[in-house]
Amino acid sequence: MKITIAGDSHGPCMIGVMEGVPAGFKIDMKKINHDLSRRQGGYGRGNRMKLEQDEVRIIAGTWKGYTTGAPLVLSVENRASNPVDKPRTVPRPGHADYSAWAKYGLPDLNAYTERSSARSTVTWVALGSVAKQFVELFNVKVYGYVVAIGSVCAETIPEKREELLKLRDESAVYCPDSQATKKMLEEIDRAKESGDTLGGSFRVIAEGVPAGLGGYSTPFERLDSRIASFFLAIPSIKGVIIGCEDFYRPGSQYHDEFHIENGKIRRKSNNAGGIEGGITNGEPIVVTAYLKPIPTLRKSLNSVDLKRKEPAKTSYIRSDTTVVPAASVVGEAALALVLMDAWLERWGCDNVDSIRRRYHEDISGWHDGIR
Amino acid sequence: MKITIAGDSHGPCMIGVMEGVPAGFKIDMKKINHDLSRRQGGYGRGNRMKLEQDEVRIIAGTWKGYTTGAPLVLSVENRASNPVDKPRTVPRPGHADYSAWAKYGLPDLNAYTERSSARSTVTWVALGSVAKQFVELFNVKVYGYVVAIGSVCAETIPEKREELLKLRDESAVYCPDSQATKKMLEEIDRAKESGDTLGGSFRVIAEGVPAGLGGYSTPFERLDSRIASFFLAIPSIKGVIIGCEDFYRPGSQYHDEFHIENGKIRRKSNNAGGIEGGITNGEPIVVTAYLKPIPTLRKSLNSVDLKRKEPAKTSYIRSDTTVVPAASVVGEAALALVLMDAWLERWGCDNVDSIRRRYHEDISGWHDGIR
Amino acid sequence: MKITIAGDSHGPCMIGVMEGVPAGFKIDMKKINHDLSRRQGGYGRGNRMKLEQDEVRIIAGTWKGYTTGAPLVLSVENRASNPVDKPRTVPRPGHADYSAWAKYGLPDLNAYTERSSARSTVTWVALGSVAKQFVELFNVKVYGYVVAIGSVCAETIPEKREELLKLRDESAVYCPDSQATKKMLEEIDRAKESGDTLGGSFRVIAEGVPAGLGGYSTPFERLDSRIASFFLAIPSIKGVIIGCEDFYRPGSQYHDEFHIENGKIRRKSNNAGGIEGGITNGEPIVVTAYLKPIPTLRKSLNSVDLKRKEPAKTSYIRSDTTVVPAASVVGEAALALVLMDAWLERWGCDNVDSIRRRYHEDISGWHDGIR
Amino acid sequence: MKITIAGDSHGPCMIGVMEGVPAGFKIDMKKINHDLSRRQGGYGRGNRMKLEQDEVRIIAGTWKGYTTGAPLVLSVENRASNPVDKPRTVPRPGHADYSAWAKYGLPDLNAYTERSSARSTVTWVALGSVAKQFVELFNVKVYGYVVAIGSVCAETIPEKREELLKLRDESAVYCPDSQATKKMLEEIDRAKESGDTLGGSFRVIAEGVPAGLGGYSTPFERLDSRIASFFLAIPSIKGVIIGCEDFYRPGSQYHDEFHIENGKIRRKSNNAGGIEGGITNGEPIVVTAYLKPIPTLRKSLNSVDLKRKEPAKTSYIRSDTTVVPAASVVGEAALALVLMDAWLERWGCDNVDSIRRRYHEDISGWHDGIR
Repeated sequence: MKITIAGDSHGPCMIGVMEGVPAGFKIDMKKINHDLSRRQGGYGRGNRMKLEQDEVRIIAGTWKGYTTGAPLVLSVENRASNPVDKPRTVPRPGHADYSAWAKYGLPDLNAYTERSSARSTVTWVALGSVAKQFVELFNVKVYGYVVAIGSVCAETIPEKREELLKLRDESAVYCPDSQATKKMLEEIDRAKESGDTLGGSFRVIAEGVPAGLGGYSTPFERLDSRIASFFLAIPSIKGVIIGCEDFYRPGSQYHDEFHIENGKIRRKSNNAGGIEGGITNGEPIVVTAYLKPIPTLRKSLNSVDLKRKEPAKTSYIRSDTTVVPAASVVGEAALALVLMDAWLERWGCDNVDSIRRRYHEDISGWHDGIR
Repeated sequence: MKITIAGDSHGPCMIGVMEGVPAGFKIDMKKINHDLSRRQGGYGRGNRMKLEQDEVRIIAGTWKGYTTGAPLVLSVENRASNPVDKPRTVPRPGHADYSAWAKYGLPDLNAYTERSSARSTVTWVALGSVAKQFVELFNVKVYGYVVAIGSVCAETIPEKREELLKLRDESAVYCPDSQATKKMLEEIDRAKESGDTLGGSFRVIAEGVPAGLGGYSTPFERLDSRIASFFLAIPSIKGVIIGCEDFYRPGSQYHDEFHIENGKIRRKSNNAGGIEGGITNGEPIVVTAYLKPIPTLRKSLNSVDLKRKEPAKTSYIRSDTTVVPAASVVGEAALALVLMDAWLERWGCDNVDSIRRRYHEDISGWHDGIR
Repeated sequence: MKITIAGDSHGPCMIGVMEGVPAGFKIDMKKINHDLSRRQGGYGRGNRMKLEQDEVRIIAGTWKGYTTGAPLVLSVENRASNPVDKPRTVPRPGHADYSAWAKYGLPDLNAYTERSSARSTVTWVALGSVAKQFVELFNVKVYGYVVAIGSVCAETIPEKREELLKLRDESAVYCPDSQATKKMLEEIDRAKESGDTLGGSFRVIAEGVPAGLGGYSTPFERLDSRIASFFLAIPSIKGVIIGCEDFYRPGSQYHDEFHIENGKIRRKSNNAGGIEGGITNGEPIVVTAYLKPIPTLRKSLNSVDLKRKEPAKTSYIRSDTTVVPAASVVGEAALALVLMDAWLERWGCDNVDSIRRRYHEDISGWHDGIR
Repeated sequence: MKITIAGDSHGPCMIGVMEGVPAGFKIDMKKINHDLSRRQGGYGRGNRMKLEQDEVRIIAGTWKGYTTGAPLVLSVENRASNPVDKPRTVPRPGHADYSAWAKYGLPDLNAYTERSSARSTVTWVALGSVAKQFVELFNVKVYGYVVAIGSVCAETIPEKREELLKLRDESAVYCPDSQATKKMLEEIDRAKESGDTLGGSFRVIAEGVPAGLGGYSTPFERLDSRIASFFLAIPSIKGVIIGCEDFYRPGSQYHDEFHIENGKIRRKSNNAGGIEGGITNGEPIVVTAYLKPIPTLRKSLNSVDLKRKEPAKTSYIRSDTTVVPAASVVGEAALALVLMDAWLERWGCDNVDSIRRRYHEDISGWHDGIR
């Protein structure tokens, strides 16, 4: 599977291409649009989000509603007003402005915002929603939730998925801890008032993933490496941890011991976050991602004018206060895409029915142990 | 640049291949061997480390001491005793044993240890040392140090590289805080006594990297993504954070403001860890990596016998107590490899002299700002 | 540089994405549209070609007319009537129908035609036209012409480019031999009358390519390999030969001897077709490609009904008589794309101006010989 | 599957790495060595071939005789005498000397011969022999034979594989036409006497390949493209044609009509060479490759001294008269590697037993037609 995302923030549309989709798979547009609207939501978003109601369109890759094996092309229209005409020469601290200028050498920093903007994540979410639908064919559930925004951190997170999702969906910041949610909303209001922005963290979980996906034989087939490469390809994400963050624990308290339960091999804990030796171990995959605050603030920051070579202040362009809730939806997409890719690697990529057959054959064999 | 690493833990040697090395580059074997010996050191290593004095050999890619553009092949001999003969069917919690079995289906778990073992990092270090030498041609310094082992965390870390490295090199655990070092040694001794293992964290820094490496135009050219994919390809590493970990700070206190100092554009802080928008910004690159404790303990853990399908205890194979210091050397290699790759992308990959010429031309142009 | 092409024959549009385009490059839409119309022309095309006047649209990747380094997305609308509703179960000999069914397993063969159709080459040509414009910045001229259609083969081909192109552009089949052109038209008329189709061959030449592009250090960087992989990715092309086809000649009469002319190293012949050891040698690149006749005939062929499992005749769908002239335009695109890719590899990929500077520096150095 | 080949002509050994080999596959070393000795044979080889009796060694990737999924590393020792000490500055026409200098800029042309030499094909053959063994598990037979050497072309080639191979193995030039063999030997003798070299062509066939491998959905998954990229990565090969070379035939006489024979879908001809629309169609794959004469002649050719910038004559280094027979063995390797790769794509890459199970399930389903 190969993913290509393209499109400029103020161009006609954003484009996502997925190559290597197996034939015979029916895509549910409503589910994609639902994820697109979740990406647009979350308390603390700015005005652009209200302007656009993102909707996906399939440009290619299906025949009478089913995938054909051809590249799947999804597009989402941009409805943003036209781009500013005046060249910008004062880089925003924390943004791609300065570093992109050092790379590409174009004199107008606005040129860079077209692609470095988080608008690019809309196709990420659209493609990821397809991947989520794909793994759902095998009862894999991928879901994310917010852990922290600014200095507020969730404290009680339900263990059961249903309960967790219920609470998450009631929270304006996608956080399954209602106490924390309340504090987060207050922190966002305060930041907004002072023209500031907030980072934080979110977690994505994939339940129902069978053991045996990924690998250690070559470095970059490790599922940890692939997950990390997808998560740190998302704007604003600066860190990722797989499994339990309590690295101070000794091995005997960290590693997940085995036992047998109703004839099945099970674990008592899941500190490995579902991955051992770069390969899924049958437990839920758990990924926590860390976001810096977004770098477009209403409040002015110290900068320099690259043309005049003198000190300057950043000017307000447009801004959200926090994107952590939205980013959790992008994170779901990232994890789903990694899993779909690993799935096709293991069970083939030509036809959904044969993938299903092979999957069930393998799964049923595992519980017999070594033969 | 393409990296290939191969070799089995008990095979004759470990092999590393680097394709795309520019011609005309003189490799210093002593520096590679020095890094190999640093990788073997660090308080808390087991006996295998004493057995082997790793030494690199160039198999291909040079002509009279200089690279030719041909694939560079490095080999490091294995001196470990022969592998055990008896099949092993009880997986170690935290190790690749169980997940690899689910993937590959071979009945003897020993087969998996040959490649999932951290012995694989020896070629990683050898290739990374070449990369470090390459970027040193441009005055880039890549160095790592230990931040935490078990529950002990370094508290005072010097800002100046020279001082930091002096303290690090005096520390048996590669930690530039001598107070912390002392406590770490004690914690290691305690863990060793009880047959346990310890994880922790280390940091790698690259100083002297110019702005403009990496990219945001496509997701996986982002330097953050590439760094993450390399670091999480290292056995035992479960997390990575680029730049400042204080994600609770609001944007106005997180982002690194610009100012002009002696006609040069500078920053007051480096919370971005040298990367903005997936591209280097001219400040040092700062990567912190998190390690789980190694999963081979002297202490027995609960497991199951995959053949008999009944509860079993893991048996002791051989073990270090902690590998955090060694991992910091592998981390240096990872960062250096990412940088060398990005370097060749920007300045070409045919000949060291023309890379140098182009680099200096670009660098000298930057300080003039937008023309 | 990474190329992605997508789009279904009867979908809304065809999409081409080019990643890794350097910033600061102005794209001429007229030149792309000119190549698109050349692709639609050539005596022997069917009715669909008249229906559609292909026109390119830039969806993303430029800012005020210049590339930004962002992925360049081109789209060309489809104007073909809606696809047939009735499932098709009788495969056409020579087409992807049968083999695609064996791969994807979908019951309606129409599903496969959507992507296996030569309509896919429209984006190939659009992207290739961008690549031609790019290499033209360095005075590289890429042009193709028809060598043979059916049993008629060009006999006299002018050596000078201007004369060759003049004759080619006067020929309804893009063949620079007017005698041969006449016979080709007759052969096409005869074939058309009998409901048959014709293959043939064409040649693509790139003049002005400097020495030193490509490589032999790894197998797939060889420029021959890359050219071959691009040409045999074009529907109907079944063979490719680089340089002189007289393989019966002994080495002393095949290899291109060197001499010095006005202080420059030159060759007396160009049997190598501009590539020695997988690397350009400064002489024109010469590629000849061979096409089978297209497999959609008006004349019925013997087939089987895959559903009923009984003999059946192919039914007429829609057809050109020959596509050799059109394919020569696709071949130009293929060669230009390979060259642009090799160019960026050698001279960097961030900014057109720095590529230009580096190119001229290298070129000027070569004629001094070994220093 | 990823292939890496490395090693210098006068270095200690040549290295081949195959990543993505499924576990549980027993490799027969004798078969590899047999192919290595076939590569060294063929009338018209020089003295180096007698010097070295190539023998393969497995460095990594097996455990007790079976593959483990780890990268398979093969090495073949070099026994050639030490490289010449004197720098060489006169490029051989037809060789990489000049073009490599333009790329890499090193002053001694000997540096380039280390990797551009056809010695590199030894690992190609070793890895290809593994691939041949792999596809043989599924009754696929890959074999090559010489079609033409210099001006002599085989005229009668048996259709049955057994008969063809018997005649080929009796021929000193691997040509299944004994009359042609005789003439080829004479032509080789004549060329040798005059210090010249000969090119020619060979064909490789793969029998027993099921329909459905490859693809057209993206350009480079086309099996034709992949075959071409592998064949033109072999030194001296300048062209490749898949299937029937009679491109003058009209479509009605070119395309392979279907019929039903004993309930199976069959073809009357195989002009497509086993590939339609970039996908195997169940008929034998037929690839013909064309070789230029090797560029190292005993006879002097006109050249220039790159250092003195004056005319010069090439000096004799060491030479074969023709390598067409040897190249046919490398061609077998190339085709087998492409097929193994396509096989793993379709049927998974973790374990040989599950690949076998899935293969048989698919194969048995095909003859039922569309359900």
